[in-house]
Amino acid sequence: MAETVSMERARTLALPKVKIDDGFWSYYISLVRGTVVPYQWEALNDRVEGAEPSGAVRNFKIAAGLEEGDFYGFVFQDSDVAKWLEAVGYLLAAQPDPDLEAVADGMIDLVAAAQHENGYLNTYFTIRKPGEQWTNLMDCHELYCAGHMIEAGVAYYKATGKRKLLDVVIRFADYIDTVFGNEPGKLRGYDGHQEIELALVKLYETTGDRKYLNLSRFFIDQRGTEPNFLVQEADSRNRVSHWGFTHGKNIDLAYFQAHEPVREQQQAVGHAVRFAYMLSGMIDVAAETGDGELLAACRRLWDNMTERQMYITGGIGSMAQGEAFSFDYDLPNDTVYAETCASIGLVFAAQRMLRLEPDAKYADALERALYNTVVGGMSRDGKHFFYVNPLEVDPKACGGKNKKYDHVKPVRQEWFGCACCPPNVARLLASLGSYVYTAKDDAVYAHLYVGGEAELELGGTAVTLVQQSDYPWSGDVRFEVKPEQAATFKLCLRLPDWSPSASIRVNGTDFSYQTEKGYAVIERTWQQGDTVELALEMPIMRIRSNPLVRGNAGKVALQRGPLVYCLEQADNGADLHLLLLPQEAELKARRAEELLDGIVVIEAEGLRENAKAWGSSLYSTAGRPAAEPERLTFIPYYAWANRGEGEMTVWVREG
Amino acid sequence: MAETVSMERARTLALPKVKIDDGFWSYYISLVRGTVVPYQWEALNDRVEGAEPSGAVRNFKIAAGLEEGDFYGFVFQDSDVAKWLEAVGYLLAAQPDPDLEAVADGMIDLVAAAQHENGYLNTYFTIRKPGEQWTNLMDCHELYCAGHMIEAGVAYYKATGKRKLLDVVIRFADYIDTVFGNEPGKLRGYDGHQEIELALVKLYETTGDRKYLNLSRFFIDQRGTEPNFLVQEADSRNRVSHWGFTHGKNIDLAYFQAHEPVREQQQAVGHAVRFAYMLSGMIDVAAETGDGELLAACRRLWDNMTERQMYITGGIGSMAQGEAFSFDYDLPNDTVYAETCASIGLVFAAQRMLRLEPDAKYADALERALYNTVVGGMSRDGKHFFYVNPLEVDPKACGGKNKKYDHVKPVRQEWFGCACCPPNVARLLASLGSYVYTAKDDAVYAHLYVGGEAELELGGTAVTLVQQSDYPWSGDVRFEVKPEQAATFKLCLRLPDWSPSASIRVNGTDFSYQTEKGYAVIERTWQQGDTVELALEMPIMRIRSNPLVRGNAGKVALQRGPLVYCLEQADNGADLHLLLLPQEAELKARRAEELLDGIVVIEAEGLRENAKAWGSSLYSTAGRPAAEPERLTFIPYYAWANRGEGEMTVWVREG
Repeated sequence: MAETVSMERARTLALPKVKIDDGFWSYYISLVRGTVVPYQWEALNDRVEGAEPSGAVRNFKIAAGLEEGDFYGFVFQDSDVAKWLEAVGYLLAAQPDPDLEAVADGMIDLVAAAQHENGYLNTYFTIRKPGEQWTNLMDCHELYCAGHMIEAGVAYYKATGKRKLLDVVIRFADYIDTVFGNEPGKLRGYDGHQEIELALVKLYETTGDRKYLNLSRFFIDQRGTEPNFLVQEADSRNRVSHWGFTHGKNIDLAYFQAHEPVREQQQAVGHAVRFAYMLSGMIDVAAETGDGELLAACRRLWDNMTERQMYITGGIGSMAQGEAFSFDYDLPNDTVYAETCASIGLVFAAQRMLRLEPDAKYADALERALYNTVVGGMSRDGKHFFYVNPLEVDPKACGGKNKKYDHVKPVRQEWFGCACCPPNVARLLASLGSYVYTAKDDAVYAHLYVGGEAELELGGTAVTLVQQSDYPWSGDVRFEVKPEQAATFKLCLRLPDWSPSASIRVNGTDFSYQTEKGYAVIERTWQQGDTVELALEMPIMRIRSNPLVRGNAGKVALQRGPLVYCLEQADNGADLHLLLLPQEAELKARRAEELLDGIVVIEAEGLRENAKAWGSSLYSTAGRPAAEPERLTFIPYYAWANRGEGEMTVWVREG
Repeated sequence: MAETVSMERARTLALPKVKIDDGFWSYYISLVRGTVVPYQWEALNDRVEGAEPSGAVRNFKIAAGLEEGDFYGFVFQDSDVAKWLEAVGYLLAAQPDPDLEAVADGMIDLVAAAQHENGYLNTYFTIRKPGEQWTNLMDCHELYCAGHMIEAGVAYYKATGKRKLLDVVIRFADYIDTVFGNEPGKLRGYDGHQEIELALVKLYETTGDRKYLNLSRFFIDQRGTEPNFLVQEADSRNRVSHWGFTHGKNIDLAYFQAHEPVREQQQAVGHAVRFAYMLSGMIDVAAETGDGELLAACRRLWDNMTERQMYITGGIGSMAQGEAFSFDYDLPNDTVYAETCASIGLVFAAQRMLRLEPDAKYADALERALYNTVVGGMSRDGKHFFYVNPLEVDPKACGGKNKKYDHVKPVRQEWFGCACCPPNVARLLASLGSYVYTAKDDAVYAHLYVGGEAELELGGTAVTLVQQSDYPWSGDVRFEVKPEQAATFKLCLRLPDWSPSASIRVNGTDFSYQTEKGYAVIERTWQQGDTVELALEMPIMRIRSNPLVRGNAGKVALQRGPLVYCLEQADNGADLHLLLLPQEAELKARRAEELLDGIVVIEAEGLRENAKAWGSSLYSTAGRPAAEPERLTFIPYYAWANRGEGEMTVWVREG
């Protein structure tokens, strides 16, 4: 039996308490509010011309008996509606919007109407497979969809105080609790796609009902134990998968992280989104139950993921087959998967570790994923999305030319038949405010540098924290601290891993700070109007990967602040692999207001190998191709593929 | 209508006329005779322990009514027997072997017994799908299997004078001719896998019956025309494939080279073996019918294949998906396909071009494929085979770790369920003698430098050519010319593309030669006992690929003579990507008698980047890893993976 230890978690700030007013993020949040969420509502209702239909809303109408027809879409189509509702909840929490709320209320009515008498809720099984509930947990995402609806119910309740959806998911969760568990007659199963684990902890935190925490812990502990539930279940279906194929002798249980008990797992394996969601739920359960053994597994898996299997962009998942992790130091740039949703899952896990132990390494990874893969997953117009986020693209190779790139799209797509990523981006960005700070006892931790105002209780008084900066373009961040009454507490500022040095001034005077796990700690008695100026050095960094990363041997990448940079064809012409960045090249950051809504570009005198002089031979004893000077322009990775189709690369050969 | 031009083809030498006695090849030919062919006979009879069963011989027994049971194996399983019989024919042509001949005669009796009354012959359709003949040409390889049996029948007849199998395939071909053709009531179809086209030309050459040539031309000309036969056929099956899946809207016709008429095709596309076999048949038909337009297409496709899409090892097929070509200059080293059979097909096509126009570029590619991919496809023990021939392997990545490598095996396998490659290697090596020379009018061309004796007619007299050399280890080749009577003719010696200079001495005296399309022409009146000494300079070459080959940027490969070299873990330790070959490194060839039955290794002072000094971080601003001197040992590519499992790479970073 695992030792039980006390683990008090830091609190996140409720969304109404954090107003974002930020040069970088306000654009995206407005985009989510003004474009992404309305656009996705159109998509969910099959009204986006040229995009693949979703069927998601209609499925609820059919399941509720309000329309005739067949289920349409993937078996997990319900989750798109749930994620949309969750995003709406976050938007409403930050800012009232009666029109949007009315639309969401209408959708919630549909969801409630589709719920069965006993609490069950899933349009696929209701329409297509009545009576076959809980017979294919491996493939059919029933508990996954339930988890997303629970998250939506919690978010919408917190935002609006309206209980309708919360009551729906409570009834559903209560019903699930009668179906699954260790007790005789219950299914000792778990979902093929983790998600309900973290959702149930949210429901526990919201309702205070420990039953949901216990159920989450059951799902986590049951996973991967022998006899293996997923194998037994598959056998009972003659190993025929929902997806049409038949499993052979060996079912790929690692894909589902069900190959061994989760506490014993040593490495991040399998489907990356499943893994990251599982890890998030594991951290929640470890923290809420004081489970030191489970926490040790979380730390081990987190470290493996971020120190051995994470792309410099914060992407995870090195292979398309299974959208999955591969193995330590295997980080191919062109055949990569790096699903947007997986990086969002990494953000979820990071935040949960930060609530448990404020260590900047978690926030560093969170920031890396957020500023590169997550925001890069969406176009500047908010209507196009990447599912896969490659670090090297040659459009000539895509579109079936070399089929190993069939999963890689060189431009963002309108809406996916499997549309997990767009609503996931929406719900994350809509709730970004809750990722900026955590507070615990008499300390507030600033994990992210995002401008705006936050209200919280510290040192026995209400405090308003005002943050201002030009981040991520500059490392100068200013805080104004406004306690209602003078109070003593700690302001802990994250010192990012990319900044070689940081100085802090309090009320204009240099402040000599202590560092704790990557946070500068400023402890004093604060007065209304005190100011803190954090100056993070933000040099252009030439990054190399660990020499064991085969695909990056001899290559460098540029990073400045949290932003990873890339070369795009739009700035540098085609055949980017011919470009070299000499070791001694001077790298200059330049503010380019005209470009991509204003970015900082990095320019350098590079070289281009002359392919034309080579002639037509395929192999030759000719010497190294002559390299001629060429000005290289790097743009932030998140901004790529906003200017048509072209090549892109993050890693560049060093001359 | 295409212009008809006269194209007289050079003759190849019949196998009994060429005796091979060669330091390099005699080992392999003995291996084929003593091990490969007997081992494959065991495999075809399901008597190899631990190997996947074949079922091929048993299928014939069942089809002949001599055993009860179901068909086993792939739909093209018959072709394994055919290729084996063909190889046996070549072995018997070179050297009598009554025991082997008796075994083959027994097999031929079985084949004959399985033939239908009307001439039809195919065990899959006979056993499993009677009445469904010719309903799935796209997938079911009926004409492909027919083609292989025709090749076997011709080879066995030429070797032994026995007509039994020849008569079987003549009856079969005659029957096929009643089924396919432009005439009303006939099928205007063609096989999904080309092979019968080249086989029918062999049958025409052997029998003199022009019907077979016409049928071959029909198949070639019908391919890819509109309305598309394969699409119509698929539609008639509701697009359900033999392989279990259903074709979507777009059938990948390029996979079958059936996307447009073959005369109009501009690039090598689709399944590489299909392409190479098709090209061979196209050359045959162009030559035999004097079809200049078709020949132009052959030249165009050959050039595209060898100048844009061929690996330095003579491998073709850049992607696993479809075992297929991808696009120009796309030559990834690790996810490569480069099937052994595809390089054998390239050899077939090259020989056919050489018969038509002796141009050393065809022989250069033939030699490259033969000495690297083809012979590398087989282990030194003759019992293990590669199907895929990668140019870069990391065993850590194989075996499911990164599933994009699932087709790549780091060690040769015993026998494949889909066993096309082993018998293909056997039949090629068993017939190697016929690839060494061609003769036309009063000229003999030496395309390959393989020791032995050849007998031919030249200048009106019988001539014996004796060739001796230590090739491929040295470029010194000696010929003794023995005309029965003094005679005037040309001895044309290929000057390989890898040799910067060649000198020739005739009877010990320097001879100043003319060069014609890469052949040194020695025209004189020859006397019994004249000698010719060819000295080909054989430097170690540092090869670069065309700068447009993205995957090889910044890398070099070594070649000496026809042999491409590689680094193996057995000699150089793990993490080969950390090794650098400095530009100025001196490269030394050393005879290593102790290694791999005696090879020439290349040694160099290289560098190894120090991965240990890096520490554990995944990304860092640390400078370039320190590189320490390390002795590099390169072995010939064909000899890799004979010393256990380990890393291998052909292309090495240049320091």
